[in-house]
Amino acid sequence: MYEAQAAFCEFRDWRTSVMEISHRSDEFMEIYHDAEAQLRRLMGIGDDYAVLFLTGGATGHAAAIPLNLAAAGDTAAYLISGHWSRRALSEAKPHCCAQVVGDSGETEYATLPAAAADIPADAAYLHIVENETVHGLEYPQLPESPVPIVSDMSSNIITRRLDISDYGLIYAGAQKNLGITGVTIVIVRRDLVKPQPHTPSVWDYQKQQKAESMYNTPPVFQIYMTGRVLAWTEQMGGIAAMEKANAAKAKLLYDYLDSSSFYRPHVKDSGSRSRINIPFFLADEQLTADFLAAAEARGLLGLKGHAVLGGIRASLYNSMPLAGVAALVEHMRDFEQQRG
Amino acid sequence: MYEAQAAFCEFRDWRTSVMEISHRSDEFMEIYHDAEAQLRRLMGIGDDYAVLFLTGGATGHAAAIPLNLAAAGDTAAYLISGHWSRRALSEAKPHCCAQVVGDSGETEYATLPAAAADIPADAAYLHIVENETVHGLEYPQLPESPVPIVSDMSSNIITRRLDISDYGLIYAGAQKNLGITGVTIVIVRRDLVKPQPHTPSVWDYQKQQKAESMYNTPPVFQIYMTGRVLAWTEQMGGIAAMEKANAAKAKLLYDYLDSSSFYRPHVKDSGSRSRINIPFFLADEQLTADFLAAAEARGLLGLKGHAVLGGIRASLYNSMPLAGVAALVEHMRDFEQQRG
Repeated sequence: MYEAQAAFCEFRDWRTSVMEISHRSDEFMEIYHDAEAQLRRLMGIGDDYAVLFLTGGATGHAAAIPLNLAAAGDTAAYLISGHWSRRALSEAKPHCCAQVVGDSGETEYATLPAAAADIPADAAYLHIVENETVHGLEYPQLPESPVPIVSDMSSNIITRRLDISDYGLIYAGAQKNLGITGVTIVIVRRDLVKPQPHTPSVWDYQKQQKAESMYNTPPVFQIYMTGRVLAWTEQMGGIAAMEKANAAKAKLLYDYLDSSSFYRPHVKDSGSRSRINIPFFLADEQLTADFLAAAEARGLLGLKGHAVLGGIRASLYNSMPLAGVAALVEHMRDFEQQRG
Repeated sequence: MYEAQAAFCEFRDWRTSVMEISHRSDEFMEIYHDAEAQLRRLMGIGDDYAVLFLTGGATGHAAAIPLNLAAAGDTAAYLISGHWSRRALSEAKPHCCAQVVGDSGETEYATLPAAAADIPADAAYLHIVENETVHGLEYPQLPESPVPIVSDMSSNIITRRLDISDYGLIYAGAQKNLGITGVTIVIVRRDLVKPQPHTPSVWDYQKQQKAESMYNTPPVFQIYMTGRVLAWTEQMGGIAAMEKANAAKAKLLYDYLDSSSFYRPHVKDSGSRSRINIPFFLADEQLTADFLAAAEARGLLGLKGHAVLGGIRASLYNSMPLAGVAALVEHMRDFEQQRG
């Protein structure tokens, strides 16, 4: 962060701020190629996949994906595991024949949907949200699928190892584990990309691939920040180290939640639990408000649950250290002793 | 810039960086509302217009505009004055019946197109690019139009006064006069917005208006930077002061260009000339390369012309002081004496 702060006003020996450099300059191309190479190295992405740095967010690309991977009448399969997969479905519907092949709504998204047996063999893809931030569900491994898997990894990209060849496309808003809001990463098997004739150019994965994400002016500063976060991730030991740390962080919090009757985790099924976002509840709204106020007083911020679910939510992204989770658990124990 | 640098690591008394605050926090809502209020005050925008801070860039919104203001079969009129209006046309074509009502291509975009007499009275809008950065053309005033005008002001927004009621919609990538790349400003008369059923939500001006640009995660840091640039603009005397300064800057450079036969401006017609982007040529490529190298040696950066037109281009955005233009003219005079 402090390195980025310095680059803010003067970057290397360029006599200019990283905020002001042209996206057509050699300097920016170096930043861009470094960020791409770092992501490829960390995630083991070969040349049969394109790596794009675009705008639009996960919600924008939920519409852009059928506009690139399906024709208007094609079927695409959707597994619904919570708020964000419902949204992805609604964005896709106008652009393909989107078919729901599983939905765990009857459990209020406290479990993952059952493995879908009826995915059409001619579907363009199977869409999942690999980690649902609101409901706190995460696929422990990818579902079986006869067709390429498209995964929204906005909240769990680079948090655990994966085999890129299991995926047709991965997309992720950068703001959780990859940097700051305003850039969206798309990693896509090149042979799957077949844009529709009316796909907007800024979301046309073929045009953007040819133009190295620069068919239009890219989000320069966001790409720079992503590069810095990827470099930090490599220095910390890469994705394997993140996976280990994230497992330890999640275990610490879940173990405490399971030992307490004062707090109630939204997800009880261990095979559905997210390692990244852990929503839980207290008995009533007053207790919840008091818990949040007391947490803030000791420097624990950002714990309020998403409006859709309410309650409390702990988000254990890569940048959250184990000590941060330990401080939260300590606060939970203190608060339970006081008010339980 | 240095104020923004400080906010980078610790912002006010929030114990967090402006980069990291949640877009759902009260702190960000204050930044957002301040930026919007500042823009409304500077430009005299009343409540009958919505002001949105979105992503997608001008190229993205060139597609989004017909998706919001026209139905699929509706006519929309396009005036073509250079590279960017051609691009806007190609992005719009799949989403409406886009009709060219004027095109100055036969002059190689060295003049503006003649005023269009044949704009269909039932067209949803007339689209112009008010300032063409590549070819260096700018409308001195808006063309006559029986239908609402949609203007791409990416490169000349807040550079001169305007009457907002002359416009149906203004859109602008922020990176020229409003901040940094990654946020797009859309100012639209509310009664004109009628999204098509398949308009992606992140570009649905109605949804985004209801959600205060936060239907999806907005580009937090870019909006913060836009707010800082708007505050600076106000401190400098507002748009009237910018207009005066920009006129003086443009006069200085055009006067020199018109007095020299060593340099050849692309646009000779004074009624078509941009005050913001001034492309000109030297006799051959070697002279051009030498001119650029000598300019860089004295700290004059970013003068290479756009690839589409070549040559030299001086960009006199609001942040460029008169002294910067004077330094350029001095360099031009020296180089002409040496090599002319």
